[in-house]
Amino acid sequence: MSKTKVKAYGAKASDAALEELQIKRRDLEPNDVKIRIDYCGVCHSDIHTVRNDWGGSQYPVIPGHEIIGTVEAIGGEVSGFKVGQTVGVGCMVDSCRKCPSCREDLEQYCEEGLVGTYNGKDEHLGGHTYGGYSQQIVVDEHFVLNIPENLDLKATAPLLCAGITTWSPLSHWKIKEGDKVGVIGLGGLGHMGIKFANALGAHVVMITRSEDKAQDAKDLGAHDVLISTDDKQMKEHANSFDFLLNTIPVKHDMNPYLGLLKRDKTMVLVGAIEPLEPLHGASLVLSRKRVAGSLIGGIKETQEMLDFCGKHNITCDVEMIDMQKINEAYERVTSSDVKYRFVIDMDSLN
Amino acid sequence: MSKTKVKAYGAKASDAALEELQIKRRDLEPNDVKIRIDYCGVCHSDIHTVRNDWGGSQYPVIPGHEIIGTVEAIGGEVSGFKVGQTVGVGCMVDSCRKCPSCREDLEQYCEEGLVGTYNGKDEHLGGHTYGGYSQQIVVDEHFVLNIPENLDLKATAPLLCAGITTWSPLSHWKIKEGDKVGVIGLGGLGHMGIKFANALGAHVVMITRSEDKAQDAKDLGAHDVLISTDDKQMKEHANSFDFLLNTIPVKHDMNPYLGLLKRDKTMVLVGAIEPLEPLHGASLVLSRKRVAGSLIGGIKETQEMLDFCGKHNITCDVEMIDMQKINEAYERVTSSDVKYRFVIDMDSLN
Repeated sequence: MSKTKVKAYGAKASDAALEELQIKRRDLEPNDVKIRIDYCGVCHSDIHTVRNDWGGSQYPVIPGHEIIGTVEAIGGEVSGFKVGQTVGVGCMVDSCRKCPSCREDLEQYCEEGLVGTYNGKDEHLGGHTYGGYSQQIVVDEHFVLNIPENLDLKATAPLLCAGITTWSPLSHWKIKEGDKVGVIGLGGLGHMGIKFANALGAHVVMITRSEDKAQDAKDLGAHDVLISTDDKQMKEHANSFDFLLNTIPVKHDMNPYLGLLKRDKTMVLVGAIEPLEPLHGASLVLSRKRVAGSLIGGIKETQEMLDFCGKHNITCDVEMIDMQKINEAYERVTSSDVKYRFVIDMDSLN
Repeated sequence: MSKTKVKAYGAKASDAALEELQIKRRDLEPNDVKIRIDYCGVCHSDIHTVRNDWGGSQYPVIPGHEIIGTVEAIGGEVSGFKVGQTVGVGCMVDSCRKCPSCREDLEQYCEEGLVGTYNGKDEHLGGHTYGGYSQQIVVDEHFVLNIPENLDLKATAPLLCAGITTWSPLSHWKIKEGDKVGVIGLGGLGHMGIKFANALGAHVVMITRSEDKAQDAKDLGAHDVLISTDDKQMKEHANSFDFLLNTIPVKHDMNPYLGLLKRDKTMVLVGAIEPLEPLHGASLVLSRKRVAGSLIGGIKETQEMLDFCGKHNITCDVEMIDMQKINEAYERVTSSDVKYRFVIDMDSLN
């Protein structure tokens, strides 16, 4: 069986040197969609994987899991997509489809382990999967998303990771009109958290250490800004939040934020997956508070999020780059110097 | 207005020297119940307060918030109790009664702060409240509990703290027949967690580091025992629990226990209120798990717990002591050398 070779951009070794590569994509299988990639967002996870920060990276790494493209061909049994249609691919390209999580449309929690869009186990070609920093991808239609036609396509790419990562907890925890929602941290995730919480009718408070992010947060839809290093402000907001979306991507102290929650309310972690500063039992016990985690979202809820975005005209704030500028973009992501997501124009690979 | 002087036993200074004291109890007010104390349980919190481990102790400390006694007199407006009746008093003797938590029968989370049975602010006499290591107490009837007549009274005292502390989360999180419930730590709290979870129809697994606690746990009602230091056993039970009741009273690493929970399930902390070992974000994020806290219980649910105990004939496993042996008991509690709660026979004060 012949395999399509496509040009891709990736890290060949753990020193994160990114260079052009030729990679194979599988031939169309009956349920597959072949997608020409138009745009791909740059997620902090790409950098962690390229740099093997979490261990387990398999080289060459072709990163990219915020993919927007155009259907070039479909397998004989594909029913949901047609050639020429704009589609998206997010963080997963497969899962077991049989476990309780998969059966509940929560493929991200697949009990056999989801197949990541990159650095996952490739059951078709062997080896590992290659992501969206490339010209083309072939994906089972179950993991392909419809992109609403009215949206600015360049700015939809990060919805596939930053978008769903913040949407899923807001949806799961049933955020509704009038809830006081705090979004902690203003980056790729945080800026989408603000937009979604605002569109859901919540009273949105941006919680940040940086006074200079206040105006940006308000422009994005925050009704109020709470400077977390200001003890007076923190006291004024104590025990007042219905929900906290914690997007801080690094080790931090959760205890001051927990003091902001009402009794029985929840802070959800979506950013940091490393060991955090010690949690004080009292921060939870004294008012029956909760800390939970949340990982991206299932395919069904990703489509719901995209449809919601179409209806409310929500996209990400992005800065477009050519593929050749990726190392520079990585440096800027690492130093939080982007508002709020880089998106690669894949034309630059041609 | 004359105040009743009663003999009490307490710590006069922060060196935890316990000695006999004369303390005042207020005269009966219209909603008050005057109680002759028959038994009082010894809670680890008593020791922490006597030793000022948490700061804020006010001396002399008269500890004791697991009180069983007999009604000696009632105020003119008391409707729920009569002279001669057996009653209980737990960790609170008052709260604001007006805040949302109080209005929801969750006085333990009173937004003005509950009034502790000891070391709370005494609005009646000034100074601070004195607890149950004494002959008598006067308490507003709202904070007095009915004790089912069929129970062995000596063994009911710790229900007022150890009992409700473990009952409340099992009730709040709606533990039901067939749930796989893990009780972590076998002490005063853990032994009640086992009994309650068993009586609620759960499949109860005792989770402990000590192999030598296995038989005791089974005798108390555990269906299975999981030795948490055995990696093989921990793997076998990974992602299988519907609920974890974490009664460990000291700093510990929560992450291995979180690995035992199913997706979307919760571990509730009821023991440790200090800083814990660093929580890994991934322990929560990867399967949308939760850590929550829980503090004693409201008066309504404490009565429900006592009624449940009456119906299922549940009491605590206790070792009776005379008041004069309290320092020895404290040493043994501190070294976990009690099955599972000391109860003071208050006759020894006469």
